[in-house]
Amino acid sequence: MKKNITDRLTRLRQTLASNGIDAVIIPANDPHQSEYVADYWKMREYYSGFTGSAGLLIVLADYAALFTDSRYYLQAAQQLEGTGVTLHKMEPGQPEHVAWLLEQLPEEAVIGIEAPLFTIREVQRIQRLARPKKIELRSLENMLAKLWEGRAALPDTVAYDFPVAYAGQSREDKLEGLRTFMRDRGLHHYFVSALDEIAWLLNLRAWDIEYTPVLLSYLLVSETSATLFVRDYKIPKELKAALQAAGVALKDYHATGQALGILPRNERFYVDGDNFSWAFERKVSAQVMLGKSVITPLKAVKNETERQHFHTVMVKDGIALLRLYRWLEQTLEQRGVKETEVAQRLSAFRAEQPGYKGDSFNAIVGYEGNGAIVHYSAEEATCATIQKEGMLLLDSGGQYIDGTTDITRTVHFGEPTPEQKRHYTLVLKGNIALQNAHFPRGTAGAQLDILARMPLWKAGLNYGHGTGHGVGFFLGVHEAPQGFAPQLGSARGSTPIPCYSVSSNEPGYYQTDAYGIRIENLMLCVPSDQNPDFLAFDVLTLFPIATNLIDRSLLETNEIAWLNQYHQKVYALISPHLKEAERGWLWERCQAI
Amino acid sequence: MKKNITDRLTRLRQTLASNGIDAVIIPANDPHQSEYVADYWKMREYYSGFTGSAGLLIVLADYAALFTDSRYYLQAAQQLEGTGVTLHKMEPGQPEHVAWLLEQLPEEAVIGIEAPLFTIREVQRIQRLARPKKIELRSLENMLAKLWEGRAALPDTVAYDFPVAYAGQSREDKLEGLRTFMRDRGLHHYFVSALDEIAWLLNLRAWDIEYTPVLLSYLLVSETSATLFVRDYKIPKELKAALQAAGVALKDYHATGQALGILPRNERFYVDGDNFSWAFERKVSAQVMLGKSVITPLKAVKNETERQHFHTVMVKDGIALLRLYRWLEQTLEQRGVKETEVAQRLSAFRAEQPGYKGDSFNAIVGYEGNGAIVHYSAEEATCATIQKEGMLLLDSGGQYIDGTTDITRTVHFGEPTPEQKRHYTLVLKGNIALQNAHFPRGTAGAQLDILARMPLWKAGLNYGHGTGHGVGFFLGVHEAPQGFAPQLGSARGSTPIPCYSVSSNEPGYYQTDAYGIRIENLMLCVPSDQNPDFLAFDVLTLFPIATNLIDRSLLETNEIAWLNQYHQKVYALISPHLKEAERGWLWERCQAI
Repeated sequence: MKKNITDRLTRLRQTLASNGIDAVIIPANDPHQSEYVADYWKMREYYSGFTGSAGLLIVLADYAALFTDSRYYLQAAQQLEGTGVTLHKMEPGQPEHVAWLLEQLPEEAVIGIEAPLFTIREVQRIQRLARPKKIELRSLENMLAKLWEGRAALPDTVAYDFPVAYAGQSREDKLEGLRTFMRDRGLHHYFVSALDEIAWLLNLRAWDIEYTPVLLSYLLVSETSATLFVRDYKIPKELKAALQAAGVALKDYHATGQALGILPRNERFYVDGDNFSWAFERKVSAQVMLGKSVITPLKAVKNETERQHFHTVMVKDGIALLRLYRWLEQTLEQRGVKETEVAQRLSAFRAEQPGYKGDSFNAIVGYEGNGAIVHYSAEEATCATIQKEGMLLLDSGGQYIDGTTDITRTVHFGEPTPEQKRHYTLVLKGNIALQNAHFPRGTAGAQLDILARMPLWKAGLNYGHGTGHGVGFFLGVHEAPQGFAPQLGSARGSTPIPCYSVSSNEPGYYQTDAYGIRIENLMLCVPSDQNPDFLAFDVLTLFPIATNLIDRSLLETNEIAWLNQYHQKVYALISPHLKEAERGWLWERCQAI
Repeated sequence: MKKNITDRLTRLRQTLASNGIDAVIIPANDPHQSEYVADYWKMREYYSGFTGSAGLLIVLADYAALFTDSRYYLQAAQQLEGTGVTLHKMEPGQPEHVAWLLEQLPEEAVIGIEAPLFTIREVQRIQRLARPKKIELRSLENMLAKLWEGRAALPDTVAYDFPVAYAGQSREDKLEGLRTFMRDRGLHHYFVSALDEIAWLLNLRAWDIEYTPVLLSYLLVSETSATLFVRDYKIPKELKAALQAAGVALKDYHATGQALGILPRNERFYVDGDNFSWAFERKVSAQVMLGKSVITPLKAVKNETERQHFHTVMVKDGIALLRLYRWLEQTLEQRGVKETEVAQRLSAFRAEQPGYKGDSFNAIVGYEGNGAIVHYSAEEATCATIQKEGMLLLDSGGQYIDGTTDITRTVHFGEPTPEQKRHYTLVLKGNIALQNAHFPRGTAGAQLDILARMPLWKAGLNYGHGTGHGVGFFLGVHEAPQGFAPQLGSARGSTPIPCYSVSSNEPGYYQTDAYGIRIENLMLCVPSDQNPDFLAFDVLTLFPIATNLIDRSLLETNEIAWLNQYHQKVYALISPHLKEAERGWLWERCQAI
């Protein structure tokens, strides 16, 4: 493998040299800016051997650099060893990768990129930075792909109709909503690259991308017509008919650029600038208007049908989790359990629930010190074996036809120390404080975020991740635009929380090499009962919070009241669906403190 | 008066017409962007008759518009009646004044402004907006001033040395600090227009501007020399010698522009772009670099001497307030007291304290419904008469040689209703929540602001102002850069709270036509005792909080503990300085709840 990488880089460098290209940037994303990427696009992995989800490779004539963040330092160091690729850590004080690259290059050098993998906004940024040294950014026109031996095929799952009984709104209505925006702005065309936006707008689902039920495609919505660019075999006959009835014609996935190139020159073509590739931007013949996605804010607001399903799916997910924890407790009486086995068992318990379609992300199962690694991914061969003692952090989620779930619980299988209880209780206080917020419409996540941190901050503690993200309805488990992020200027943090959006609430605390704590519930944003101009949160997730980890003396009266009420609700909604023994297990864990 | 205004506008319009100018914008500020403005610059008042502190006048050939905000709608409507000037309300949904003006004008029109009154940043903004219609912005070269009959003289107070025993750092050291920045950035000149920055940097004070102990001047700091531009008679001999010893020469105030015009062309001239007039920008011969003020963040961090004085001055201010409230309670037993008399009496009690130099702003004395008018200003002839019943909001502050104070208390002279108690207690909970925050260095006011609002928000209530502002040390009572503002994007809200800065903490609640509640303490930002990378707040202000307005059942245990501890501290620090009867009064009000 390591030898392979050096061979690949040698061949690449020969081709670059003969084409007068001084450096290439190879990113990890696909042309749709998907969170998870199909093998077909794992080009950075092919040329570097590094398999992490984030990070990009820069190849120069005599040097190659892999830029990645702290989650992957260890893994990258191992995987890059012997490949001749040097790890560059992305952290404060270190130069950003474009700045670094420009520093290495002489004036009038040429940087090559595969245009489909770069958004027009990123290209504009690189060009602006490159201008002082007159460095040129050049499209490689598939050069990297042509050198790629044994490239995987495009994802080939078949799409299916997502019924209005789940979606709550017909594709015709959604298209009409988009066209109203287009008419108001005098637009002739609206182009969509984001796969979850297409799936939402056209009420269809597939499984082309891991963890996210989407179909590999592009969509062009015009004033009176619409075209879905997709491989023909992926759309069954009935769905094709339904799409045609809604005015959506089909063209091949690879014909997208060509279709954009023959649009009338005087027509106005609107697109989300953060998800529109340079490749397409160079081809469009109409007048391109770069804006923000119009679909993202529509998709974020869950309609009444979606909201009802979200309540139902939480019962199913709660039952699956209950069975997992009961199984785990029983098994630990007899033997240790590997972290990876927990994840497999949990998927199996979820799969027993009707409507389950898969997991919504790779479950994080972190026992003791592994729980303190925020993006820990257990590997069969190397992972820890859980014993009947210590703490376990379990962050997981399911994709069901009636909703997407994401829940984290932290439990202790033995006798928690006072320090562990204090940390757990501070995290819980933060979770409750955010859960119980009321706020004027227009309030953004970066304002609310501090509520979840303040109990930890008062103890001089903190956690190094955001407090929450938006969640799709049987779509991406991480969904734009809102979220609870501490950065005032971030897009996620500065977006007002939309009424009827779903977000996670997941403060945590991580004691390096010892244990990790996170308590995560999904919440639905609803109108406040105190004032129609205000919003508040309904808790969606239904599963007990570990009371044996709570130091009651640290809780205020109103926090205890919330916890007891929550446990009452969990028991009332979950217990009717349980067997007798399971009900007893839940009863114990829902007792008032 | 009203007749005067129409005459003035007629004369102005004749002059504009004969000079080919289609419109003028007349703002309310001075060339130093001072918060309070000397009469010499009250040009907007001269041409409109409107005396409010905020708002600007736009005069066209056949129309005149005064733009102001909600604080002044009533006053502006009265003062503009019969003048031919139309009130334009500045509020959401209404066009901003420049956008409105550009809408009125034809292509290639000419807008005139007095260049000293507009910052270069504002001029750039207007020019950018005016470009599409090719509208020209032209300097009026004193045209408005020449037409101004009976203009007041320039402020003429005499400056004095502000001893290091108060300032804590010599002017030599402060200049050296600034020059270190200049050397690091390769700058030849640093120019200062802001009067409080000059007063801070040169350790001098005067009383040229109401409420703020500053000297009318400009300052040019160069690599090895410095020039203070000021009328000669304003600097006494000893101060002149001291300034000269620190390398600061004097030139006339009106010679500033000329001096900037003869700087060598290849030298780098740095200035705060938000406080540098267009007039000067047009004159500077050196290379202008617009940046942020370097002095503002230095001034915000109070040194150890300043911090010690801040603690002392709070005792004095507390004693003055105690005497005011005792006098008021005793007087109300016999007669009503006008709101204006309260303000006068309070100034008199403050004046009894050593080092008192004046008030730090026009005290807000709002009885009953007047308390709900956030920027209420009582007038002798029309103000309310306080009786021995109902609520009084009193927001006031003093300028002492050893610090600046700003405190608001709300009291009830009779039996508060349960609703009043609830509102008061929610405001108090917000004040305590912000007071008790701990947060990582780098946290901004827009993040912390929500802590003070959440108790009200949970009841569907809010207040329409920021939660706090920076405070100077015997300088401006409103001091940049930090503050607690709900707007994520605002300069004030997005500035990290500097360690050792002083800020107000002043949540409120306003029941229109009934009463206003505000509880304001000043706080010193200090390192957290929990973690050296975190900050927290020490309370500075020392005066009891009205316990007869508290609904104890709404307070959590930790809130009650804080209040009782605060009252213990107030009593311990103030009581030694009191007469026997006063001590008893304070004792009663500092009892634990």
